[in-house]
Amino acid sequence: MVTIALLGTHDTKGAELHFVREKLIQFGAKVRAVDMSTLREEKKYSPDHPPSRLAGLTGRSFEELSALPKAEASEVIVEGALKLLQGWLDGGELNGAIALGGGSGAAMACAVFRGLPLGFPKVMVSTIASGDVTHYVGTRDLTMVHSVLDITLNRITRPIFAAAAGAICGMARALPVEKGADKPLVAASMYGITQPCVFSLKEILENEGFEVVIFSAGGNGARALEELTAEEHIDGVLDITTTTMIDEIVGGIRGAGPGRLEAACSRGIPLLVAPGACECVNFGPPETIPEKFIDRIFIRHTATTTLMRATATEMRELGAKMAEKLNRARGPAALLVPLRGFSRYDEAGGPRAMDFAGNPAGTFHDPESDMAFLEGVKSTLNQERVRLMEPDLHINDEAFSKIVAEVFLSLVK
Amino acid sequence: MVTIALLGTHDTKGAELHFVREKLIQFGAKVRAVDMSTLREEKKYSPDHPPSRLAGLTGRSFEELSALPKAEASEVIVEGALKLLQGWLDGGELNGAIALGGGSGAAMACAVFRGLPLGFPKVMVSTIASGDVTHYVGTRDLTMVHSVLDITLNRITRPIFAAAAGAICGMARALPVEKGADKPLVAASMYGITQPCVFSLKEILENEGFEVVIFSAGGNGARALEELTAEEHIDGVLDITTTTMIDEIVGGIRGAGPGRLEAACSRGIPLLVAPGACECVNFGPPETIPEKFIDRIFIRHTATTTLMRATATEMRELGAKMAEKLNRARGPAALLVPLRGFSRYDEAGGPRAMDFAGNPAGTFHDPESDMAFLEGVKSTLNQERVRLMEPDLHINDEAFSKIVAEVFLSLVK
Repeated sequence: MVTIALLGTHDTKGAELHFVREKLIQFGAKVRAVDMSTLREEKKYSPDHPPSRLAGLTGRSFEELSALPKAEASEVIVEGALKLLQGWLDGGELNGAIALGGGSGAAMACAVFRGLPLGFPKVMVSTIASGDVTHYVGTRDLTMVHSVLDITLNRITRPIFAAAAGAICGMARALPVEKGADKPLVAASMYGITQPCVFSLKEILENEGFEVVIFSAGGNGARALEELTAEEHIDGVLDITTTTMIDEIVGGIRGAGPGRLEAACSRGIPLLVAPGACECVNFGPPETIPEKFIDRIFIRHTATTTLMRATATEMRELGAKMAEKLNRARGPAALLVPLRGFSRYDEAGGPRAMDFAGNPAGTFHDPESDMAFLEGVKSTLNQERVRLMEPDLHINDEAFSKIVAEVFLSLVK
Repeated sequence: MVTIALLGTHDTKGAELHFVREKLIQFGAKVRAVDMSTLREEKKYSPDHPPSRLAGLTGRSFEELSALPKAEASEVIVEGALKLLQGWLDGGELNGAIALGGGSGAAMACAVFRGLPLGFPKVMVSTIASGDVTHYVGTRDLTMVHSVLDITLNRITRPIFAAAAGAICGMARALPVEKGADKPLVAASMYGITQPCVFSLKEILENEGFEVVIFSAGGNGARALEELTAEEHIDGVLDITTTTMIDEIVGGIRGAGPGRLEAACSRGIPLLVAPGACECVNFGPPETIPEKFIDRIFIRHTATTTLMRATATEMRELGAKMAEKLNRARGPAALLVPLRGFSRYDEAGGPRAMDFAGNPAGTFHDPESDMAFLEGVKSTLNQERVRLMEPDLHINDEAFSKIVAEVFLSLVK
């Protein structure tokens, strides 16, 4: 028998949650209903776990909770619910979770879901599931069911809610999956402009018995790489495309927070880093670029992405920053700097760039500023602990991928 | 035994689709694998229904298909797959559908899914499920599973894919849902600024034995109202908030296409219309408003929505347009025009508006332009067929809701 947690605000969605509860029971599940209401404690459809219990798990009373501003009360409920579910999960007493909610109900339930492990079934039924769900789903395996109508019971929503109840039972019963012959899993970070490097690497390492999964190198992709590494899903990291770090320094839009590079370092798994695409700072369409960059040059990458060439000063700062992080690596680490360029855009003969006004203006090829990166690295890196190599190659040269693969294999041994 | 359609491009995602197929069979389902590839006909994992079959259903050969530009070939595949699935569905031979895909695979599969009926289980597994899914899900009950990583098989994606296979089996087995005591279902359109009217109406009609479901009056919500009405889920329509039609005329951003008001008219179900919020044209943040509206006045509704007061000329055109549509109603229809204002914003004593530059400038209260709407109506409406009433009330007056309810009940009889 599978056990399913049912989350929602029982004061406003009582009848609907009760309907899903009955369906879950009909489909053979044991239900633990968790009430995320912040306003009233008593209600018609009594849940198994009232908000006072959730508040209690965070060291508060329900009276304290209901006196808080709504946003703060929601945070307490999320914290309490996460503790409750995590406890059940640790005790092997939970196989899946489902929630119903409108905008604010979904915000609370998804915050709980994002705190649960990858691979644990989690289903959110909401009106918000047909819009921009970026901040609800984040980097997790959250399943979103669009309710089409508001969360009320009628002939249109009843089959949708029943199917969602069936879905979570089916998901819970589908797991765990037999492990199969899993190979060591290596994560690689890639942009289109470092693709030749990463694709060759993937081929070489897969022939050596590894499995390589590729993450997009910007924003959410890089965040997912860090999270999955921290959660021990990943056995080694080829962080070839570390471009989010230059966005953090200069103020581009695809940064991934200051924690970049840290998960692999603190776990001590093999880590090989290259400055892929680090000469490119990410912005949206040209009209969104801040005026202070009026003296810079740009490449229009797509309709929605414009890249700006980083300066020698910024590259030097980046080199020092990256070295500082690598110095803290608890396991084998190496930094490989390809002297002839960091992406398809800064190679000799790369595409034409434009100035702030949109007129043709040079290219991103600028060996001096790439050298400034290397100076930054050398000023800071503890070369006793972290191997530094400077192949006289471009990042997308096949020979570079071969060296990267060799060094990585030596780190793994 | 349930039968599940499995959709995807078997040339690029063969191993992953094969894994899901095996899981579906293990969970007791019969599988119909449909190959949406546009490039190659032969592949390692042979699907049950190759692309040549899909092309054939649209009157084309696979050779013709693969010679088309990618976007056109995709359209052919979508059309063929929809025909295939619809045929099985009509024959009672299909209980659910699941697809795996990246960006373009998801675009194809979701286009097929959006063509299938509401309440039919449909699951999409994709990387795109953690971003803006507006155009993938649309107004349908589509379930999105975030794959976290690209669609390749590894220890992270395998449990996610297996759970998704379990989900579609669970959804298929959960249906059909016992009908219960379904009451006649009435759809109402609402914005926050017509909420008092719609909430009173809902209460009155629910006491009379109806069930009232509320749709957001702009864009996707209004589109869903039309679609669900066309598909015969709805027994009567209270189209109180018809504001999308002024957006169509003036060029606002929350139009719902030219088909507005038409589903109820052509089905001949009871239809009661009011010009709720029609004096408001929708735009995004102030900086997005086109320069040509430099002489207008605005109300900042939220951080992301700015409303613009429509002129007498535009309101007159709207009145005529609405009357023209209602003249084609095949069933009982009525138009109720509240003479004292159409939303919370144009009532006497409504909130302060601002000019294009953002300085305080009057209010939306403008009885003359509201009268222009009524003139437009009267110039066109066939009052032999469509009842017109002009209560000397504001739309949000409780007395107005009572009149609306009475008229609606008389239409239903």
